[in-house]
Amino acid sequence: MNKRARILVINPNSNEQVTKGFAGGLTGFHLENGPEIHCVTLTAGPFGIQSQADAESVVMPLRDLVAADSQADAFVIACFSDPGLHVCREATPRPVFGIAECGVLTALAHADRFGIIAIAQRAIPRHSRYLRQMGLTGRFAGEVALNMTVAEAAGDGPVLARLVQTGQILRDRDGASAIVMGCAGFARHRAALEDALRIPVIDPVQAAVGMAVGAVLSKT
Amino acid sequence: MNKRARILVINPNSNEQVTKGFAGGLTGFHLENGPEIHCVTLTAGPFGIQSQADAESVVMPLRDLVAADSQADAFVIACFSDPGLHVCREATPRPVFGIAECGVLTALAHADRFGIIAIAQRAIPRHSRYLRQMGLTGRFAGEVALNMTVAEAAGDGPVLARLVQTGQILRDRDGASAIVMGCAGFARHRAALEDALRIPVIDPVQAAVGMAVGAVLSKT
Amino acid sequence: MNKRARILVINPNSNEQVTKGFAGGLTGFHLENGPEIHCVTLTAGPFGIQSQADAESVVMPLRDLVAADSQADAFVIACFSDPGLHVCREATPRPVFGIAECGVLTALAHADRFGIIAIAQRAIPRHSRYLRQMGLTGRFAGEVALNMTVAEAAGDGPVLARLVQTGQILRDRDGASAIVMGCAGFARHRAALEDALRIPVIDPVQAAVGMAVGAVLSKT
Amino acid sequence: MNKRARILVINPNSNEQVTKGFAGGLTGFHLENGPEIHCVTLTAGPFGIQSQADAESVVMPLRDLVAADSQADAFVIACFSDPGLHVCREATPRPVFGIAECGVLTALAHADRFGIIAIAQRAIPRHSRYLRQMGLTGRFAGEVALNMTVAEAAGDGPVLARLVQTGQILRDRDGASAIVMGCAGFARHRAALEDALRIPVIDPVQAAVGMAVGAVLSKT
Amino acid sequence: MNKRARILVINPNSNEQVTKGFAGGLTGFHLENGPEIHCVTLTAGPFGIQSQADAESVVMPLRDLVAADSQADAFVIACFSDPGLHVCREATPRPVFGIAECGVLTALAHADRFGIIAIAQRAIPRHSRYLRQMGLTGRFAGEVALNMTVAEAAGDGPVLARLVQTGQILRDRDGASAIVMGCAGFARHRAALEDALRIPVIDPVQAAVGMAVGAVLSKT
Amino acid sequence: MNKRARILVINPNSNEQVTKGFAGGLTGFHLENGPEIHCVTLTAGPFGIQSQADAESVVMPLRDLVAADSQADAFVIACFSDPGLHVCREATPRPVFGIAECGVLTALAHADRFGIIAIAQRAIPRHSRYLRQMGLTGRFAGEVALNMTVAEAAGDGPVLARLVQTGQILRDRDGASAIVMGCAGFARHRAALEDALRIPVIDPVQAAVGMAVGAVLSKT
Repeated sequence: MNKRARILVINPNSNEQVTKGFAGGLTGFHLENGPEIHCVTLTAGPFGIQSQADAESVVMPLRDLVAADSQADAFVIACFSDPGLHVCREATPRPVFGIAECGVLTALAHADRFGIIAIAQRAIPRHSRYLRQMGLTGRFAGEVALNMTVAEAAGDGPVLARLVQTGQILRDRDGASAIVMGCAGFARHRAALEDALRIPVIDPVQAAVGMAVGAVLSKT
Repeated sequence: MNKRARILVINPNSNEQVTKGFAGGLTGFHLENGPEIHCVTLTAGPFGIQSQADAESVVMPLRDLVAADSQADAFVIACFSDPGLHVCREATPRPVFGIAECGVLTALAHADRFGIIAIAQRAIPRHSRYLRQMGLTGRFAGEVALNMTVAEAAGDGPVLARLVQTGQILRDRDGASAIVMGCAGFARHRAALEDALRIPVIDPVQAAVGMAVGAVLSKT
Repeated sequence: MNKRARILVINPNSNEQVTKGFAGGLTGFHLENGPEIHCVTLTAGPFGIQSQADAESVVMPLRDLVAADSQADAFVIACFSDPGLHVCREATPRPVFGIAECGVLTALAHADRFGIIAIAQRAIPRHSRYLRQMGLTGRFAGEVALNMTVAEAAGDGPVLARLVQTGQILRDRDGASAIVMGCAGFARHRAALEDALRIPVIDPVQAAVGMAVGAVLSKT
Repeated sequence: MNKRARILVINPNSNEQVTKGFAGGLTGFHLENGPEIHCVTLTAGPFGIQSQADAESVVMPLRDLVAADSQADAFVIACFSDPGLHVCREATPRPVFGIAECGVLTALAHADRFGIIAIAQRAIPRHSRYLRQMGLTGRFAGEVALNMTVAEAAGDGPVLARLVQTGQILRDRDGASAIVMGCAGFARHRAALEDALRIPVIDPVQAAVGMAVGAVLSKT
Repeated sequence: MNKRARILVINPNSNEQVTKGFAGGLTGFHLENGPEIHCVTLTAGPFGIQSQADAESVVMPLRDLVAADSQADAFVIACFSDPGLHVCREATPRPVFGIAECGVLTALAHADRFGIIAIAQRAIPRHSRYLRQMGLTGRFAGEVALNMTVAEAAGDGPVLARLVQTGQILRDRDGASAIVMGCAGFARHRAALEDALRIPVIDPVQAAVGMAVGAVLSKT
Repeated sequence: MNKRARILVINPNSNEQVTKGFAGGLTGFHLENGPEIHCVTLTAGPFGIQSQADAESVVMPLRDLVAADSQADAFVIACFSDPGLHVCREATPRPVFGIAECGVLTALAHADRFGIIAIAQRAIPRHSRYLRQMGLTGRFAGEVALNMTVAEAAGDGPVLARLVQTGQILRDRDGASAIVMGCAGFARHRAALEDALRIPVIDPVQAAVGMAVGAVLSKT
């Protein structure tokens, strides 16, 4: 590789803390002669993506960002609703990955049935539509919400305890044998949650960056 | 990473040429401080895996190999029937990836509907059962066989031309928008086939090693 | 009904001819004391909706139009990709109907298996994703494109002949027993196509307005 | 429209009170120059349709009634098991609608996942077979029975309270975002149930008459 | 077994030749101390069951016959539309088998994907609805009609040749690895068709009687 | 039948008590001039099949046994994981039946939705994968484990009471209308469990032998 390949990971919300958070989960992916992982924040995005309108509002800005970029070899959209995934794919021949899609696909490579932890109840119908769209409901165990505000979820309070409780419901009641964290901002809890539940826990940003790395390296 | 992680890629047949062939497709994955990719041949395996008996005969040897290994951080079983995948997973807490499963999952992250190119017609019902088992038929466009002998497929004759013809059938008649090469031995044709078809072509060994790399790096 | 109810039918593209065209198919729905059917053109929209970007570009404008409207009792989005359907539903408690969804649901009330006639090949993967999202693939026979430009499709040339040919393929090769016209602009050909094929032919704008009328009348 | 179109709504049981009940829910559909809605009772039917034998016993009488009618432009079979739907469709080229099919299809145009309220437990396997036959299980949340006798359900006692309780179970435990009332006789409770649950509640007779109106108007 | 068990096989059409025909395929099932196989003709039935009305017309007579019978230990309804299956099951606690259901279930115990040979095209949508109702479409390869009249199908002319041609289409084009003969009257061709196609061919009357024998013997 | 046909029922574990147990459930199948039912124990098998490794370890020995046998007309593999089913089918043109597959198929001929009673929790994901592979999840109500050791399950203690409790959960909570006993060793409890639950209870060895008998008799 003469020039290092480059993967652009885009946080569609404008909250820099979220970008920093998931970037922190990607330190293992920075390899000397491997692809450069570049995390950016969509400044035009809302502070958080909670409603359908929040998700839709970033679609065209994401497309414009992808279309205007001439340096990345692959893109990752780092919001668990995968906003703009198909319009970005239309805008470039380079591969574009969504963290929801990659999170679920990666869980399927680790265990029989996956459960999803959502932050808020209102996201569940949106995720549910999307799972059907992806044709990936056959091994879906269920989705349960933390029912925390984004501020609470980002805080240092009882987040891990709630993640563990919710993961136990998915594992013990719904039969999940892997957990997908349904949010870009939980990377720092992945290892502890996995230790507590003793089943694979997938951080979707890591999953998508992993698939992007694989795609880039497959062409070299 | 004090000590480099290690991914063990196992060719379940005893044909060293096949191992060398797919190892050749993995050169891009050898990164200085990234995980070590180690390709081995199951000497107890048959020379090729064509029948159901061939596939079943390697299951327990693969399990023994995995159980006995204390150095790998992740395993890849490099045969498109994913023989022994679940028994190997039972034998170790470390992740085990099958190239058929990862090939299909990776295709799903690139395009809407995938087609599979098989070497021989007789493999298709086996693959078909397995797609149903994985719950991944929702975006399956079809599978078409090259109808070549393994010797012909490994040779330098008209293999690429046949791959292109078969890929065109999957793309144009069956509506596939990505192709999974249903064999561990076609890495050297991936780029040319992708150029000819102008849709993503997935080498399943690269796909599985990519997912293994992602899994290993996610824990660092 | 003291005051007549009102159904707002929105053409998301800015082509007034399309609006006039489907309004022409709705004359039967104008009943003296029934709901008022009001057809409008989204002036902010592109001249036609062909690409994914075209479809995404109208999502937020549609939402704004719906949110700002205080007079309609129900809304119809008259583009066969149902752009903005869920964000509009989030923006109002009044029912919002998409013509693709209603076209397919109405076909299911007339016959066992439905086929779709698309204008262009490139729309088919988008429709296919959407059928999966709606969970309505179980009785889907197939989709075939006319492969005409929008200008040709709007013209007086061989459009009907092409519709008939395409419908025959869906009926005879794919086993469709009803046809959904996958475009807002074909109302004027519906009756002739049905006569030629001798199976029900659904105009999706009529279907959605019909369901909107039913919804409005059910509350009176 | 020179002559008003006519929709014949047939109650397959011989209970005139049921016919009057659902006719009461159709007053909004009587539009001056719109289609005439004519509700009739199948005098040959049993007093209520509870068993499979009750449902089967009306199939051929319904067919004979439809075949003998020369005035209706569309038919609605107003029993939630849709008895005789396919044999009636065979008997006439005019459209025939079943209230179960239309109730479910209409719910799908309003919300992501539908639940059904049955009167009696024993109807649930019959409905369940029928949902599979229609290929409409993909967005089915569940079905719960009131476990009331038909007399109780028709009475003025605690019917609404039981409907609300049952609807809450479907909404809160099973994730339904719309409710289909699985019986022809609940029209008078629709609005109150919708107010109590705050999600769309579909009366299946209204739904089917709505689709019949749409079909008739689409041809004018 | 003090008293021999008894299996009543009912031909729902009134054509004695059909009854004799399938009885001829059951000679192997007459075992000395095994269950008695008794084949009867529903004299109230139509001469053949071709239309939906034909099928529906026998439902209540079948139920009455089953309810009135006090001697059989199990019942088989020998028409490939399984008319009256559920109402007969309601009428008796003794098991009732339908030949379509048992034909398909038996094919699934022999091979990966089954195809069905129908006599007439018009039966295919009815069978297709029924396969969905049974939830057995996952391994369905396709259905192709002979397009012969019942008289032709019963004759000695080119029936076998047409069965072979049709079976080849199902095997070679549609990927069927077992064939279900979609009619009660083809027992005499089963062996020859199987020899010609070299994949299992299931006579549905034999399949249902086999399952009835198994049910009866399991209780002894 | 000049020479009696022969069905070979193979217990893949080496526990003779299990073989004797299910042979006891087959006494009704021994008919004077019917097929001979011969039950054998795979001496090379483990004492019980609990893990994935246990199941895989018998695959090739089962194949060798089937390939070496020249006397049987049909084979039954009597372990609820159906180990080696496909490799045995490859090894002989004579039909090979698995008790899990036949148990489920037979349940589908008796009732709308089936539940499975497993001995141990760890078998459930294996069964779940297999149900998906068979394409038979459409009418699957659920699976619940007894959570007994094999020794306890074989003993005379509270086995029946636990079977009844577990069956009630499947019937009342999960909506099962038939129960499949997910183990080769429960034949002696079938009748009592059926009496207690008042829904059909299927012993899978009886089911598979019944289908094998049907297959053999269909060719005579």
